[in-house]
Amino acid sequence: MTNKIEVGIVMGSDSDWPLVKSAAETLEKFGLGYEVRVISAHRTPELAFEYASSAADRGLKVLISAAGGAAHLGGVIAAHTILPVIGIPVKGGALNGIDALLATLQMPAGIPVATVTLGSAGPVNAAILAAQMIALGNSELTQTLVEFKETLKEKVANGNARVQEDLK
Amino acid sequence: MTNKIEVGIVMGSDSDWPLVKSAAETLEKFGLGYEVRVISAHRTPELAFEYASSAADRGLKVLISAAGGAAHLGGVIAAHTILPVIGIPVKGGALNGIDALLATLQMPAGIPVATVTLGSAGPVNAAILAAQMIALGNSELTQTLVEFKETLKEKVANGNARVQEDLK
Amino acid sequence: MTNKIEVGIVMGSDSDWPLVKSAAETLEKFGLGYEVRVISAHRTPELAFEYASSAADRGLKVLISAAGGAAHLGGVIAAHTILPVIGIPVKGGALNGIDALLATLQMPAGIPVATVTLGSAGPVNAAILAAQMIALGNSELTQTLVEFKETLKEKVANGNARVQEDLK
Amino acid sequence: MTNKIEVGIVMGSDSDWPLVKSAAETLEKFGLGYEVRVISAHRTPELAFEYASSAADRGLKVLISAAGGAAHLGGVIAAHTILPVIGIPVKGGALNGIDALLATLQMPAGIPVATVTLGSAGPVNAAILAAQMIALGNSELTQTLVEFKETLKEKVANGNARVQEDLK
Amino acid sequence: MTNKIEVGIVMGSDSDWPLVKSAAETLEKFGLGYEVRVISAHRTPELAFEYASSAADRGLKVLISAAGGAAHLGGVIAAHTILPVIGIPVKGGALNGIDALLATLQMPAGIPVATVTLGSAGPVNAAILAAQMIALGNSELTQTLVEFKETLKEKVANGNARVQEDLK
Amino acid sequence: MTNKIEVGIVMGSDSDWPLVKSAAETLEKFGLGYEVRVISAHRTPELAFEYASSAADRGLKVLISAAGGAAHLGGVIAAHTILPVIGIPVKGGALNGIDALLATLQMPAGIPVATVTLGSAGPVNAAILAAQMIALGNSELTQTLVEFKETLKEKVANGNARVQEDLK
Amino acid sequence: MTNKIEVGIVMGSDSDWPLVKSAAETLEKFGLGYEVRVISAHRTPELAFEYASSAADRGLKVLISAAGGAAHLGGVIAAHTILPVIGIPVKGGALNGIDALLATLQMPAGIPVATVTLGSAGPVNAAILAAQMIALGNSELTQTLVEFKETLKEKVANGNARVQEDLK
Amino acid sequence: MTNKIEVGIVMGSDSDWPLVKSAAETLEKFGLGYEVRVISAHRTPELAFEYASSAADRGLKVLISAAGGAAHLGGVIAAHTILPVIGIPVKGGALNGIDALLATLQMPAGIPVATVTLGSAGPVNAAILAAQMIALGNSELTQTLVEFKETLKEKVANGNARVQEDLK
Repeated sequence: MTNKIEVGIVMGSDSDWPLVKSAAETLEKFGLGYEVRVISAHRTPELAFEYASSAADRGLKVLISAAGGAAHLGGVIAAHTILPVIGIPVKGGALNGIDALLATLQMPAGIPVATVTLGSAGPVNAAILAAQMIALGNSELTQTLVEFKETLKEKVANGNARVQEDLK
Repeated sequence: MTNKIEVGIVMGSDSDWPLVKSAAETLEKFGLGYEVRVISAHRTPELAFEYASSAADRGLKVLISAAGGAAHLGGVIAAHTILPVIGIPVKGGALNGIDALLATLQMPAGIPVATVTLGSAGPVNAAILAAQMIALGNSELTQTLVEFKETLKEKVANGNARVQEDLK
Repeated sequence: MTNKIEVGIVMGSDSDWPLVKSAAETLEKFGLGYEVRVISAHRTPELAFEYASSAADRGLKVLISAAGGAAHLGGVIAAHTILPVIGIPVKGGALNGIDALLATLQMPAGIPVATVTLGSAGPVNAAILAAQMIALGNSELTQTLVEFKETLKEKVANGNARVQEDLK
Repeated sequence: MTNKIEVGIVMGSDSDWPLVKSAAETLEKFGLGYEVRVISAHRTPELAFEYASSAADRGLKVLISAAGGAAHLGGVIAAHTILPVIGIPVKGGALNGIDALLATLQMPAGIPVATVTLGSAGPVNAAILAAQMIALGNSELTQTLVEFKETLKEKVANGNARVQEDLK
Repeated sequence: MTNKIEVGIVMGSDSDWPLVKSAAETLEKFGLGYEVRVISAHRTPELAFEYASSAADRGLKVLISAAGGAAHLGGVIAAHTILPVIGIPVKGGALNGIDALLATLQMPAGIPVATVTLGSAGPVNAAILAAQMIALGNSELTQTLVEFKETLKEKVANGNARVQEDLK
Repeated sequence: MTNKIEVGIVMGSDSDWPLVKSAAETLEKFGLGYEVRVISAHRTPELAFEYASSAADRGLKVLISAAGGAAHLGGVIAAHTILPVIGIPVKGGALNGIDALLATLQMPAGIPVATVTLGSAGPVNAAILAAQMIALGNSELTQTLVEFKETLKEKVANGNARVQEDLK
Repeated sequence: MTNKIEVGIVMGSDSDWPLVKSAAETLEKFGLGYEVRVISAHRTPELAFEYASSAADRGLKVLISAAGGAAHLGGVIAAHTILPVIGIPVKGGALNGIDALLATLQMPAGIPVATVTLGSAGPVNAAILAAQMIALGNSELTQTLVEFKETLKEKVANGNARVQEDLK
Repeated sequence: MTNKIEVGIVMGSDSDWPLVKSAAETLEKFGLGYEVRVISAHRTPELAFEYASSAADRGLKVLISAAGGAAHLGGVIAAHTILPVIGIPVKGGALNGIDALLATLQMPAGIPVATVTLGSAGPVNAAILAAQMIALGNSELTQTLVEFKETLKEKVANGNARVQEDLK
């Protein structure tokens, strides 16, 4: 990973990593440099403060935050930066992630968190969204996204082929 | 209000005050000194940090936090203190406070927020709970709480009398 | 409004306009040019197709979509563009917007919609998020956002002052 | 399957096929010709447009759509045809299909999607409903449906017999 | 109303009529004959039995059922006929119609109820769906539906014009 | 009210009385004697204990309990008697009675509470259910219930007449 | 089982029997005669009608109904009898029984269904409730219930002993 | 465990013990003496009464109550004492603990129950909260809590290290 680091991925616990990993993998597909940090809004609030406050100065462009339960991480990060913050609600726990969804999404006026899908599609979509933002000033990445969109069609076509095969 | 200030009430917005006021009024009934601050976890995170971090040193014993929506305030306060933090989920908004309830309650292991009733009973119960905590080292307050509990019975008796009257 | 149009706001019905209006007002505060269209994913699907497909070529950078009920508009718009799409779930109807929230948020892997707060904070946050994205390549707008963030603190301070006044 | 094709089954992903299969099997029981396509409202929107727009001209009478998550497929299909569209919300994902249920059902006035049971009964009921519609102009199929309804009673009687056996 | 009666509208209580009326009005727009009955699945079960059992013989083609709360009416009607049954969950009551939604939709395999939107769009969509079914054997009605679909576009265009006017 | 008192109605607060009143009125229609008490499971637990423990000895046959919020009253009453206990979840509060519904219904094995409709139908149905229980040993009351059931049909017929009138 | 049959247990499908069985077992503990039938409100509506209508004449005193999904069985049974009807919502399906809970509980005024716990405690509690009703005219059964209530205390005491053992 | 017993842990059933155990283990870490009792609000109400009423006199300072389903235990305990009562909603059952959450939290004004996280974090947080209360009059325990808070940071750092390792 020798690209300039433009995306920071933070998560509340390393137990979120198996889910969040696909965000990193998707960013790599797009050739985007990233870094990953485990930061807890509640257990390491100073770290969250420092990380978010310095992110823009360190050249980061977009922050992706993943947390479960009373998922405050996205909001706490967004409180300390004007970079766009994407929130991944982490599925799991007694309420299956509905708490994380609402705690990530329902931010007050002034401090948005761009929330993505609750479930395995979330981290993938967070990475695509980050790429879409960065592509606003990067025509090569724009082209990569256009091509990526085409591959989605192929996947559907392949799925269709499998069903037709099964119907024979 | 000349009592020593032992309880700090923080709320995310002054629009929460009409609800939260009954916490202050209940503390006054118990003769407990308190202070009130509007502090936003997202708009004034440094203030939240400073307030919570210095609370114990300033002689506060219990913190009461009220917030709506993605109610991160209780958790952010609790992240910076070892004083017990009581969380009042503020009813209202598109989800009628269910977001506030879950964002207040579903704290990760290590950082509890003692959550009370969603609804108008919440601030009253937060104040009583604070009093119960402080009464652990205050026998006079203990006696006040015992007497308060008796008044609850009277209220029920009065309610019963009103219904019997209506039945005549 | 003589600024270059960089943000497209689409909504499913003009009955959404009273809510969505604050997105437009917020963009104006940031000096961002925008256009507004009523486009229904179900009643005018061709229009949705055309609008989204041509948005990038017409110089738009971010699309904001607002819809209620089975809120498909954000997803349909996102299906036809690689520009980032921000989704505002419109509160209301029999389910009070929970249907709109889920239909906007739960996009499959590949086609993200950056969902913001359900409730009156939603359109404001959508506009701020759009500004944060555009600011990635616009240092003047970055400065505006930094200053805007400061004003949030003032609002909290003012709210605090009002409560202290009430406590006297 | 040499019957005239009267029912089109579309689904958002071939991962839905194990559930949706019982719709196809039920249609076969009724002697109804059908075709199956994997079409994504978001990944292949043009395909959805073309399929739905041409369905009536190709002799189809009823369309059955199955999708999960932000299940827009039924609505997108219905937007491009006046044939009756039956929606199967696909159970699964972090919200167990509640998102699919609401995204399928809560269509705005003008574009109905006839939604059936969330769960394994859904595809079976979609097929029966399709048959009921086609039977309006097909007396032989009407008779088949009458006979099918009788078999439901037998199943209940058999179930009852099994319980009586167990009680001995 | 001199058209042949092809649609039967039943509702659980005349208190549902203000909502359900728009189904009747929509059917009239399409020139479809209909009849309306108040029938309770629980208070007049024999009436429900008789009405549904004789509907096909009396020339009805589609039944529309509206009920709130533990909305059993659609299912009870569907149990006694092979005509397609459309269910309108009636909003209201302590659970705001979520009970009606689930009690209408979650039918077991074998007895479908084609459920439409919870909310004011429901009765309109029920009528359109009925028309779509009847149009399968009626080319004139097909044409009417095509034209109706065009009017939806006009409504959106008018809505757009109103917003543009407001923006000036 | 000179009938032998066979039904005891208890409620958690006299604020429940406007809702619960219809239970009393319905019992009167059936000629059943009843008494009403305001008893709080939490504020007057000893009273709840005494009331429930002595109910059978005082000749009561059925207890009806109404409470909102964390509605423990039904369960507390049922813990102290073997008389059948009917629970009315009282609608209202921030969660609109869903808390009362679950707190009343979800009793552990061994201590049932017969829960009735959340909403205005609840107290009426509680009274009818009480009458159905008492009628097991009272043939006159059985006859009254049979006649009552007939009146329900008339109400539906009257409702139907009103709708037909409106359709003219 | 040579006791007079006083309780009728009906369920919508024999797949409910593994859950419902504990109702039968509990009735046997109380020495109460019972019968069990699989009857579907939707697949065998005439059977439901006949069973419920004739239940009182055949000497039954209480009916217990168990069903899942759009659980109409309790309501349909209650529509045809004045015997008390106890409803067991059957857990399972895509919504885990919440549909069954609401479809059983939310009966309109006039036709109560005495709903018990969603979950494994439900059938046990249905049987106890039936026994409590029948005990109103049966002092021997009353005594049995008093003794049963004592055994509940023993179970708790045994549970406590197990925990104390584990703590050593 | 030779420390003075200051915390009483009660639970509704010994089946809650595997979850609740971590409360006991956490109290031991803090060097706090505790006792554990299985007490059912419904099956052994007298025991609940006696335990709670005598708790303060026996030197207990905080009570922790854990229960599932219609979780009345916390409320019943709180009704009989002025000691602070912490409620752990026990996850599980058909509703996965949402019933326990609401039945624990939604206490009426006057009788608070300090509710903690639904899920495995709940008992840990209950113990920490109890320690925070007792620490108000115990400077040694205060120091222990400060040190404990530091260990939370280490856990996060370790988690971060694991992720960095995985990224290599």
